[in-house]
Amino acid sequence: MEVITFGESMVLFSGDRELPLEYVHQFHKQMAGAESNVAIGLARLGHSAGWFSKLGEDAFGRYIMQSIRGQGVDTSRCTYTDAAPTAVFFKERRSSGKTQVYYYRQGSAASLMTKEDLDESYLAQAKILHVTGITPALSESCFELTMHAMDVAKRNQVCIVFDPNIRWKLWDRDTAKTRLLEMAARADYILPGLDEGEFLTGQPSPKEIAESFLELGAKAVVVKLGKDGAYYQSLTERGHVTSISVEEIDPVGAGDGFAAGFISGLLRKDDLPVAVSRANAVGAIVVGIQGDTEGLPNEEELQAMLSGQANYQNVQR
Amino acid sequence: MEVITFGESMVLFSGDRELPLEYVHQFHKQMAGAESNVAIGLARLGHSAGWFSKLGEDAFGRYIMQSIRGQGVDTSRCTYTDAAPTAVFFKERRSSGKTQVYYYRQGSAASLMTKEDLDESYLAQAKILHVTGITPALSESCFELTMHAMDVAKRNQVCIVFDPNIRWKLWDRDTAKTRLLEMAARADYILPGLDEGEFLTGQPSPKEIAESFLELGAKAVVVKLGKDGAYYQSLTERGHVTSISVEEIDPVGAGDGFAAGFISGLLRKDDLPVAVSRANAVGAIVVGIQGDTEGLPNEEELQAMLSGQANYQNVQR
Amino acid sequence: MEVITFGESMVLFSGDRELPLEYVHQFHKQMAGAESNVAIGLARLGHSAGWFSKLGEDAFGRYIMQSIRGQGVDTSRCTYTDAAPTAVFFKERRSSGKTQVYYYRQGSAASLMTKEDLDESYLAQAKILHVTGITPALSESCFELTMHAMDVAKRNQVCIVFDPNIRWKLWDRDTAKTRLLEMAARADYILPGLDEGEFLTGQPSPKEIAESFLELGAKAVVVKLGKDGAYYQSLTERGHVTSISVEEIDPVGAGDGFAAGFISGLLRKDDLPVAVSRANAVGAIVVGIQGDTEGLPNEEELQAMLSGQANYQNVQR
Amino acid sequence: MEVITFGESMVLFSGDRELPLEYVHQFHKQMAGAESNVAIGLARLGHSAGWFSKLGEDAFGRYIMQSIRGQGVDTSRCTYTDAAPTAVFFKERRSSGKTQVYYYRQGSAASLMTKEDLDESYLAQAKILHVTGITPALSESCFELTMHAMDVAKRNQVCIVFDPNIRWKLWDRDTAKTRLLEMAARADYILPGLDEGEFLTGQPSPKEIAESFLELGAKAVVVKLGKDGAYYQSLTERGHVTSISVEEIDPVGAGDGFAAGFISGLLRKDDLPVAVSRANAVGAIVVGIQGDTEGLPNEEELQAMLSGQANYQNVQR
Amino acid sequence: MEVITFGESMVLFSGDRELPLEYVHQFHKQMAGAESNVAIGLARLGHSAGWFSKLGEDAFGRYIMQSIRGQGVDTSRCTYTDAAPTAVFFKERRSSGKTQVYYYRQGSAASLMTKEDLDESYLAQAKILHVTGITPALSESCFELTMHAMDVAKRNQVCIVFDPNIRWKLWDRDTAKTRLLEMAARADYILPGLDEGEFLTGQPSPKEIAESFLELGAKAVVVKLGKDGAYYQSLTERGHVTSISVEEIDPVGAGDGFAAGFISGLLRKDDLPVAVSRANAVGAIVVGIQGDTEGLPNEEELQAMLSGQANYQNVQR
Amino acid sequence: MEVITFGESMVLFSGDRELPLEYVHQFHKQMAGAESNVAIGLARLGHSAGWFSKLGEDAFGRYIMQSIRGQGVDTSRCTYTDAAPTAVFFKERRSSGKTQVYYYRQGSAASLMTKEDLDESYLAQAKILHVTGITPALSESCFELTMHAMDVAKRNQVCIVFDPNIRWKLWDRDTAKTRLLEMAARADYILPGLDEGEFLTGQPSPKEIAESFLELGAKAVVVKLGKDGAYYQSLTERGHVTSISVEEIDPVGAGDGFAAGFISGLLRKDDLPVAVSRANAVGAIVVGIQGDTEGLPNEEELQAMLSGQANYQNVQR
Repeated sequence: MEVITFGESMVLFSGDRELPLEYVHQFHKQMAGAESNVAIGLARLGHSAGWFSKLGEDAFGRYIMQSIRGQGVDTSRCTYTDAAPTAVFFKERRSSGKTQVYYYRQGSAASLMTKEDLDESYLAQAKILHVTGITPALSESCFELTMHAMDVAKRNQVCIVFDPNIRWKLWDRDTAKTRLLEMAARADYILPGLDEGEFLTGQPSPKEIAESFLELGAKAVVVKLGKDGAYYQSLTERGHVTSISVEEIDPVGAGDGFAAGFISGLLRKDDLPVAVSRANAVGAIVVGIQGDTEGLPNEEELQAMLSGQANYQNVQR
Repeated sequence: MEVITFGESMVLFSGDRELPLEYVHQFHKQMAGAESNVAIGLARLGHSAGWFSKLGEDAFGRYIMQSIRGQGVDTSRCTYTDAAPTAVFFKERRSSGKTQVYYYRQGSAASLMTKEDLDESYLAQAKILHVTGITPALSESCFELTMHAMDVAKRNQVCIVFDPNIRWKLWDRDTAKTRLLEMAARADYILPGLDEGEFLTGQPSPKEIAESFLELGAKAVVVKLGKDGAYYQSLTERGHVTSISVEEIDPVGAGDGFAAGFISGLLRKDDLPVAVSRANAVGAIVVGIQGDTEGLPNEEELQAMLSGQANYQNVQR
Repeated sequence: MEVITFGESMVLFSGDRELPLEYVHQFHKQMAGAESNVAIGLARLGHSAGWFSKLGEDAFGRYIMQSIRGQGVDTSRCTYTDAAPTAVFFKERRSSGKTQVYYYRQGSAASLMTKEDLDESYLAQAKILHVTGITPALSESCFELTMHAMDVAKRNQVCIVFDPNIRWKLWDRDTAKTRLLEMAARADYILPGLDEGEFLTGQPSPKEIAESFLELGAKAVVVKLGKDGAYYQSLTERGHVTSISVEEIDPVGAGDGFAAGFISGLLRKDDLPVAVSRANAVGAIVVGIQGDTEGLPNEEELQAMLSGQANYQNVQR
Repeated sequence: MEVITFGESMVLFSGDRELPLEYVHQFHKQMAGAESNVAIGLARLGHSAGWFSKLGEDAFGRYIMQSIRGQGVDTSRCTYTDAAPTAVFFKERRSSGKTQVYYYRQGSAASLMTKEDLDESYLAQAKILHVTGITPALSESCFELTMHAMDVAKRNQVCIVFDPNIRWKLWDRDTAKTRLLEMAARADYILPGLDEGEFLTGQPSPKEIAESFLELGAKAVVVKLGKDGAYYQSLTERGHVTSISVEEIDPVGAGDGFAAGFISGLLRKDDLPVAVSRANAVGAIVVGIQGDTEGLPNEEELQAMLSGQANYQNVQR
Repeated sequence: MEVITFGESMVLFSGDRELPLEYVHQFHKQMAGAESNVAIGLARLGHSAGWFSKLGEDAFGRYIMQSIRGQGVDTSRCTYTDAAPTAVFFKERRSSGKTQVYYYRQGSAASLMTKEDLDESYLAQAKILHVTGITPALSESCFELTMHAMDVAKRNQVCIVFDPNIRWKLWDRDTAKTRLLEMAARADYILPGLDEGEFLTGQPSPKEIAESFLELGAKAVVVKLGKDGAYYQSLTERGHVTSISVEEIDPVGAGDGFAAGFISGLLRKDDLPVAVSRANAVGAIVVGIQGDTEGLPNEEELQAMLSGQANYQNVQR
Repeated sequence: MEVITFGESMVLFSGDRELPLEYVHQFHKQMAGAESNVAIGLARLGHSAGWFSKLGEDAFGRYIMQSIRGQGVDTSRCTYTDAAPTAVFFKERRSSGKTQVYYYRQGSAASLMTKEDLDESYLAQAKILHVTGITPALSESCFELTMHAMDVAKRNQVCIVFDPNIRWKLWDRDTAKTRLLEMAARADYILPGLDEGEFLTGQPSPKEIAESFLELGAKAVVVKLGKDGAYYQSLTERGHVTSISVEEIDPVGAGDGFAAGFISGLLRKDDLPVAVSRANAVGAIVVGIQGDTEGLPNEEELQAMLSGQANYQNVQR
């Protein structure tokens, strides 16, 4: 595998109507998880990617396994447990534009992951380790697993890409800050959102955020600026990539698409600005489609977006 | 109960697609009724409200009862009859923005309501009676019930809030005008839309409409101006409240939300402009959500709207 | 047209689940009407059939027109009115096997039909007039239309087939009895169910019922006996046709299928027992499928049933 | 209130197809809870019943509140908490007849109930307290609440009806046995299933089970025997009620219907065999309909079942 | 019949969600076909129109027959074959606005049409023959049928309206060009889109395109310019009709609506600019509704659009 | 891979109601294919299995790839082509028990498979090759591929299991017989249904059929007898395995389950009667669930069926 990632994927139930959930009668099932989104994004772009987690020995665990494996991601290191259920959550969309999620993930199967769940030799042969700030927030043992994985990666010259992905509902701000900074100190590439960068570094601007992370030891930092594109800085270069104008259908998953595009650039040995543009374009495509992974592009679709040919009204008959 | 209201609630069948109804195959069931909307709106805001009607002794009657009682409205005075069915109607939405309703309410259970359906002591203990111009249009006996209720309210110093709510499909213009003016002459607060005010008073402007109603004996008049907010006038003050800019998803129910907000203000002993602002904000919230009652706010949501914090894109995770 | 019939067709809303209707959220739309069922059944069997009614000038009226015309029935004499709506009804199925219907047909468009709605020359050229006992129950003017049509038919040597089809919800027992007997006295062929025959003639057995009707002037009578088949008697012959054993999925529409099969036999100049067998087989096919008209057979399917080849488990690949 | 009960009600998501849940895409929302089923059953039969729980301050908590209140149950003592979510569960039906549930109720809002959640004066005025063996299994504080409620009831001469309702997934067998026997020792009426009776008393037959419970201090015991009806025994009489033959559509909720029917009998001061017959009939009706509460009968439907008139195929038109 | 047309109508399956089709689980069935759209549009406007095709002797063939006949189109010349299936296709809508269709029409029943399928006397009595460039692309025999029909029309003084309607997926560019020009040379009225006109004539502007076609022998040419309206030119006049501003919901079917409106104008003997305006208005109405035929207007709706009264937000209650 | 198989998998659209398809509005998408069913069955039972085909470069091809890969089958040798579409078919279920399929597979992507699509070294390393009589019926080149695969298998001592799986819609009887017998002559194990055996060998009984195939060179033959179980015979033993009594929900896929169970037995080196029992049990499980692959058991479920513990009504709470 070129890239290894791990984390919790959950079954998502979305209401069929845009109403407060107490008034919604029908729900449909999907799958969601930041790390598996990235793995799927990489597989779609032609890379080999492995993802692992601990799933409940139940129907929902099997569903997640089937979904991710079906997308061409290597799930050979993923395990099942009957000690806890696979996590689920519910998404409420109000027509006024407010989206809210209700998690049922406390004490979930994935939160039982420990250091023992890492196959070190599997990771050692990879080129890139992708970690998010979600996994360490699941439980103490998940935090340990995360740190352990980063250490194993470092020891084996596996490049580490870190996406903070802060989930305020999962831990308190102090713990989040301390631990995410510990992670940042081990990462080669850091991909914070602007808010996340401000929170973690206390700095107000993309440039200062990036510098703050570079001082911690990162090779490069990319600060995601939403509609304002992305700012990148390494020890040797810095710059700004403007965003691609698309109709925003569903912002969820855009960050994961960004990460997949960026890692894909690293694997292709793109120069930093090229990799960031690539990341940017994948994010833009994902934003334009309902769902986290359904819109992840293949190379052809990505090239079309990069060359500005995509996204027009087109009935092909 | 702080507030009493009464009228016809119907079962609403909406097509699952935006097409002329002959081409729609699936329909979903909801509940609709101006007076019960107001009662639910008041309950949501923490007030005690009672609503009554005459329901058919059938599945749809039970559904309406369960829906309204479930929202915390007192339905203890509501009765069933097997002499007529609960009314239903169908809503057609065309993608070009035209909405049309098809009523099946002629000779319905609610139209059989008479003066005897009013529990006078129940009304006598209330602070406010809410009446609309829909109920008197259902039948002669319903008109009598409405006038009788207003008389009982007056006799017991129960404040009367009157929302004309003209339904052109239910009666001819002459009868409507005569009878609604009879009602207006008994009301303490009148909440006409601009068109309704023009029709009833023959006056062209909010100010003249209000003055015309004040001459009939009202304490205050609030003329609803849609996107232009609302104009209010009492014997001692007058003014204008600007509308809150929201994306309009479904305008139906906005007037009922306005009435609920206004009555809530009266119960809180708000000054007139404050009550009108409150009414305005409830209406704006209702406009932003599909459905008549699903969007009615609790106090916290109302305060958020009044302080301008609501209604932004927000994925809380 | 070989056959003319007329009556009310309604839009039927069935719940998507087998539950009391107050607990059903989704409904699907179909079309139902005894007389149009017969016309469609005849068209399916290759005959030319005309059906007319008065439809509301609304989406549901257009839907009924499109559905019946689409099945190849001549609807050229059907008219629209904006004076009343197209009737609708709701069907409740409880899993315990009870089915209940809720009608919204009082004062419907079809009930406004009058003698003037009959195109006499259209009827005069037909071979058979089919009438049911439903239409005269809709309104006084509909009763007049029915009697008028039978008179016109008689005058023009158009054979009259009468299916009593008693609807207890539509009229009181005395009126029903009087008027249906008036109709019976004008009919050439009468197709009562056993209960209907007992009610109308006061006789306890198929034979006595048949004789009673024959005395009124009918050429032949066929008494439908449900799982016991059918008894027929004319002035010259009598006999019994055993029922065909099928799994009963939906009994509604079986009588209409029976009538269509019988009329088809008359048109083919089948002997009476052959026509009754044909009627019986169409009824059996209809019973085995959900829906009133969806299961009506073409000639090939009917022959398969008559020769006992149909109705086995069969995956054709 | 005549009857008070309390416990956890959950949101139930059932798949739209009979398949292992990993292959089901659409789910529909319902509400389920043994104690609220009993309260709704009592309300349907014309009694006043109060139910309380602790609900999450979320959409699902509001849904449960609306559903139960809508059915006419007093929910005035029910509270909300934002410390934990409302429990949910998923139901899997395989066409081979296996049904499995997946709970997400650990650490739920209801499990946070404590003795403080009991309004003693509210209970003291009731005639009957209904308790199940589910609530004490939710948490230590729920067990304390249950014992406390039984003590308060005893102190105030409120009759206690106890339905063991053992949930093996919620606690280990030893704890279950010990604690349910503690409860049994405080109960006036005990309604075990045969398996439950065997487990709790170690006795093999209905008679011995009943006697074992009577020795613990109960006034009467009714052992539910499924298709074999029910055995009852008090200090002065004993007997057997045969089951009513119905097609079993959904066995879930039958025990709750049984309890509601039995308590209704107690409130009517029926003799024991009459009350058991009543219980039996309610259970039979519930078994014949999909869903826990949708089939709970009103007095008229119950009498029809008791007199054997119900449950035949009947299209009323 | 005033107008005759013929061609392939297919069953269309559209996904219930805006997603790549591999992620869509539910599909709904509709009917689609350029020529039947035109016939339905003409029937809706009160003209008599006949359409024929060859349908598969299967459920989908029957569905198409029922749908088109139900709309009042004469289908008496339509035939069935069991030699090939009725064509189907799938429509994919991505939220980014891309629509793609997947055809299963190769070797379909309609492609088996030959010259023998034309009832010459049926065509000879018509006023107008409508042909598209789709039918000749289905098969060699369909091309022959098309040319034959045009010849028969010419011989009988039946006016020919030709809509190129190029389908790139059905034939190669060279064949398309050659054969469509052969057709153009036989047509009285030609209705190309701008792109089609450029492709067929090699001319860059509406005026030059029109002139090029006029040289081939047409009486008049109307070049459809989308949001820029339409350009028309005959031997004696030329001009431009501006488009009507509507929200575009679904562009498919607009060209067919345009053709129906134009032919309707010819039948009414409108002057050319009037007929083009009429065409333009029908197209604008169709664009504003989801579906090809559901939005086709009757005369009243068309007049409302022409007089600018239509298309505003309107809840009629 | 322990087992290799190849063939056409198609997208299946099933109507949401049991009606003739012209009356069905909603369809749901599934995946179906005899060979992929076998591969999935083997993967479910813990074996490694590879399946390949040629898929259309379209949404449906991607869906099939994702579905099969998601189940843990190796799809690394599966290819895409843009020269033809992925096949689809529609399933019609009438309530009278008749099921019919409508194929759109002529000229499909899979029919373009040739000898070149076989990776010989991939096959050479396998233990078992599974072939059906469907693939050779798709096209001449598919027949060549099938024969070639059997030859390569033989050359590499890969055991061949052959399931005739005759599809009458795909080829004429003479060709089918000739070519399937050519295949049979190369197979080690043959698994005909009784009808298929009769057709291919001209023999009337299981024993004679088996002997006929054994003479062609097979090691063992298992004749599937439906409700009568299965007959097996090798050179050294013969016997009969009785069927397991289950409620038949959906017979489709049972034969594929049988093959998967049998091959699983071969891989476990079970004695022939044990392998046949295993095959029998898998088939019985599949018959009891809606869908081809959804019911395929894992080892634990299979053991439960074999030991008679499965398949009772069971609500686990």
